[in-house]
Amino acid sequence: MYRSHTCGELKATHTNTEVTLSGWVQGVRDKGFMVYVDLRDRYGITQLYFDEEQTAAAILERAQKLGREFVIQVKGKVQERASKNPNIPTGEVEVLVTELTVLNSSIVPPFTIEDKTDGGDDLRMKYRYLDIRRNPVKESLIFRHKVAQAVRNYLSNQDFIEVETPYLIKSTPEGARDFVVPSRMNEGQFYALPQSPQTFKQLLMVGGMDKYFQIVKCFRDEDLRADRQPEFTQIDCEMAFVEQEDILNTFEGLTRHLLKEINGVEVDKFPRMLYDDAMRLYGNDKPDIRFGMEFGELNAVAQHKDFNVFNSAELVVGIAVPGGNAYTRKEIDKLIDWVKRPQVGALGMVYCRCNDDGTFKSSVDKFYDQNDLEKWAEVTGAKAGDLICVLSGETNKVRAQLSALRMELAERLGLRKPDEFAPLWVMDFPLLEWDEDTERYHAMHHPFTSPKPGQLELLDTKPGEVKANAYDLVLNGNEIGGGSIRIHDKSTQAIMLKLLGFSEEEARAQFGFLMNAFEYGAPPHGGIAFGLDRLVAILGGQETIRDFIAFPKNNSGRDVMIDAPAPIDDEQLTELSLKLNLKS
Amino acid sequence: MYRSHTCGELKATHTNTEVTLSGWVQGVRDKGFMVYVDLRDRYGITQLYFDEEQTAAAILERAQKLGREFVIQVKGKVQERASKNPNIPTGEVEVLVTELTVLNSSIVPPFTIEDKTDGGDDLRMKYRYLDIRRNPVKESLIFRHKVAQAVRNYLSNQDFIEVETPYLIKSTPEGARDFVVPSRMNEGQFYALPQSPQTFKQLLMVGGMDKYFQIVKCFRDEDLRADRQPEFTQIDCEMAFVEQEDILNTFEGLTRHLLKEINGVEVDKFPRMLYDDAMRLYGNDKPDIRFGMEFGELNAVAQHKDFNVFNSAELVVGIAVPGGNAYTRKEIDKLIDWVKRPQVGALGMVYCRCNDDGTFKSSVDKFYDQNDLEKWAEVTGAKAGDLICVLSGETNKVRAQLSALRMELAERLGLRKPDEFAPLWVMDFPLLEWDEDTERYHAMHHPFTSPKPGQLELLDTKPGEVKANAYDLVLNGNEIGGGSIRIHDKSTQAIMLKLLGFSEEEARAQFGFLMNAFEYGAPPHGGIAFGLDRLVAILGGQETIRDFIAFPKNNSGRDVMIDAPAPIDDEQLTELSLKLNLKS
Repeated sequence: MYRSHTCGELKATHTNTEVTLSGWVQGVRDKGFMVYVDLRDRYGITQLYFDEEQTAAAILERAQKLGREFVIQVKGKVQERASKNPNIPTGEVEVLVTELTVLNSSIVPPFTIEDKTDGGDDLRMKYRYLDIRRNPVKESLIFRHKVAQAVRNYLSNQDFIEVETPYLIKSTPEGARDFVVPSRMNEGQFYALPQSPQTFKQLLMVGGMDKYFQIVKCFRDEDLRADRQPEFTQIDCEMAFVEQEDILNTFEGLTRHLLKEINGVEVDKFPRMLYDDAMRLYGNDKPDIRFGMEFGELNAVAQHKDFNVFNSAELVVGIAVPGGNAYTRKEIDKLIDWVKRPQVGALGMVYCRCNDDGTFKSSVDKFYDQNDLEKWAEVTGAKAGDLICVLSGETNKVRAQLSALRMELAERLGLRKPDEFAPLWVMDFPLLEWDEDTERYHAMHHPFTSPKPGQLELLDTKPGEVKANAYDLVLNGNEIGGGSIRIHDKSTQAIMLKLLGFSEEEARAQFGFLMNAFEYGAPPHGGIAFGLDRLVAILGGQETIRDFIAFPKNNSGRDVMIDAPAPIDDEQLTELSLKLNLKS
Repeated sequence: MYRSHTCGELKATHTNTEVTLSGWVQGVRDKGFMVYVDLRDRYGITQLYFDEEQTAAAILERAQKLGREFVIQVKGKVQERASKNPNIPTGEVEVLVTELTVLNSSIVPPFTIEDKTDGGDDLRMKYRYLDIRRNPVKESLIFRHKVAQAVRNYLSNQDFIEVETPYLIKSTPEGARDFVVPSRMNEGQFYALPQSPQTFKQLLMVGGMDKYFQIVKCFRDEDLRADRQPEFTQIDCEMAFVEQEDILNTFEGLTRHLLKEINGVEVDKFPRMLYDDAMRLYGNDKPDIRFGMEFGELNAVAQHKDFNVFNSAELVVGIAVPGGNAYTRKEIDKLIDWVKRPQVGALGMVYCRCNDDGTFKSSVDKFYDQNDLEKWAEVTGAKAGDLICVLSGETNKVRAQLSALRMELAERLGLRKPDEFAPLWVMDFPLLEWDEDTERYHAMHHPFTSPKPGQLELLDTKPGEVKANAYDLVLNGNEIGGGSIRIHDKSTQAIMLKLLGFSEEEARAQFGFLMNAFEYGAPPHGGIAFGLDRLVAILGGQETIRDFIAFPKNNSGRDVMIDAPAPIDDEQLTELSLKLNLKS
């Protein structure tokens, strides 16, 4: 037995108990005649005490030679500390060591194993096993486990069945790029790794397994942006014999349960917003509603004056920045530079100060008088002391730009509080979106999403206007889940696939098994999938997902710790009936 | 709302309740003026009733036209049945239907949706979504979910943390063949899919996450035998600061919990058996100890007579078949044919009848007298009325042959009872096994398994005799789990890898990250992995795993439902810097 207790549990009540502890040496304070060692394990830190009078000389000497991250086992007696440390749970006691065994030595770690480490990101990733010893990473992984357990228990208690769907499936050209897996036994053929278990969960509905979920890895071979991983985890869910309302209620229940169980936060019924309203009011289909700063569309009050920039714009839209009138001219100029950065892409920004005395001072006073500006304030909801920021241009672009500005300012103003949770359903997404590159419609959600009742007819005439039975769950400005009511009849599915540019033959080759399944009594069904990595990060009050993933990959899709991917043997390639065909 | 109740819950207490049900038409009995429809969903079957007097004519007519597997929704009132069916939970009642909506039609399914279907295996796999509607498959999947939930809750309650390890990792030449995944972003390089998360769980131990588990998919590109899948699920576990005894106790606890929670069976402390004893007594490292029929080694009593077959054999070994003396000569001849089949491979079989009067009659009476045969009976534990079956030859081969015979006879004698559970730890496996093909030692478990204390020295001189700190958990003759205490110091790991034929360079290339990690204070650790597919099947009292997997692959690694694997576009291949290099 390596330990009788963990390093996180000894308290004053254990005084005089003989204990055995094992762990890592966090640090050694050698005062010559006395030595203090902080011993760390997953559960905490306990102080070990050695002194000339009470410790055998050989043991004291060995203690003095301990290095950081040595693995040791000690036996000894718990005693109250001379000077207590109220900051840690074990701070009342220490262990007077009578036996010391070095279980393993350690060379000096490349960074400090502290909450605030001196290690940069690259180093931490390369030595992730050391990084995991640090509290912030360790606690994030434990937090993730707790969330996953809470999800599983909640859904199981509601009669959901977790069903494992296969990982070696079939490549489909729709959606993102697949990772593929060459098959040795089926020469020249490939499996694909699932981007999601979408078709399998629909087949489970056809199979009568009317409440399904799975916490499952999914894969997308996309060029990686910051905070995106080639493999990621979904909470994948599907229900049969349900309407949209049933699904919203069920998963609002799950989310509310998590907020309560994990964060201790009680949340009211989640508000719902139409996609069109989200775009109009926040320029964004995943608005952060922890704060206001809603968009005010200014076309009616700002156009038809002599300001051509606005007159020629499709949309003129502004937000009121609370207290923004306090910004200096220099600060405002910086803000203008900020929106002009290529990442945001605005051509410029008009602003209007709302003075405390009720007067206005804008950057376009040449064109707009006080009456005009008062209307701007009305529309954007600006009060005395605020700053109105106005952008103009092509509707979609200008909304995205103003949304970026809104989020940036909220961040600066401290309005995005990590311990405040504002969930929101965004509803009635468009069914299709036009892709400029390929000049055809793509499914906005996926090709199995059903149009809203009564809109099937529009598909032929105005496909871009058709709304879908699709919904996203947004939390604090992040999409944490998205889903839809699916098409469950073969003819609608055929129309959809045709509209998405599939020939009948292609449709049969790719989705034949689903179309076949729909011949045999498919029930009405729908579902949702949550991104677990993101959900966990947000519940944990963090912006980035990386510390909630044990072994993440970098932006080139590499695991720098194990150095993967890597070349493979020619023999292995030959067995797979493959040859390299390098571009360079 | 598609339903107010499921098809499994209505009872006499619901009489006169207005209900809405949805489900599949299991069958229609049309008696002209009355129609009975069995409506099925995941939860059961409820009888629907229509008649001329109480049902609107249009509805009655629609009911008469319903086909098998149509999806319908009905509203109506619960009433007691005229003739009750005590065999199903809803057998007391029926629903007098007032509204009927056909939600989807169905063409005639390719096999009957009944517990005993007329569909063959191939057809069932092709239409797996229909197969899942059948109770035996549906219940197996639900059973699997319950087992997985019980595992997760038990381990979580014991402070284990489920950590997700990556699926896109690095190919290693050791062990079975890897499935590989070409990387588009890293030209000419490949990920591998994990055969197990072995190294990652060890890195988690180095990282201080001292109790880890994960229910995780693993992948092996091996030629498939019956009942083996290219992707399979493990319950993967690892602990730090533990000795072998701690691990055995922990996972004996888990297994006992599952037997109790899932099967309602209380099991005593699991017996333990040395690997050498298992081979000696059962010819098998995973003995089924639900019944006796232990091997008796007969060299001492059967050699040095005039029977050259035995004299020249390395091992002469027999078992007593309870009641086997009742076999006719013809039956015994058939048994001899059975052991001579190529799958078993014996050259012949000697037998000895134990007559009720205490005399013996053997097939080799020419060489052995009654005294000799009495000794055979003593050694094999044969009693009057039994039959002694004796095989001889090279030790390993003859043990395997007699083990096959023992299992076959036990099966025929009904000694392998599916509702009886006999767990067993098999301990002290050899560390290495000699591979005839490559003429070198292979790790029997894996290269990270530690030798038993004090046996490190033998590694140089008699590597084949070194035992490992390795153990298997056997249940009813199946290995359900296996694990070991790992090597945690760098120098032993280096010795092991050298012995397994890795050059220093190869070792660094393949396992460098683990060897590196061992520089930084690796704790003593060990673990175990359970095969979930097999475990669930055995707990479910079944021999084959396939019905416990939602979408299994066939023996060529194909998913015949979705028709995967499949060729991919040239464009996709080019993007991956690959070309086909077909052999044919």
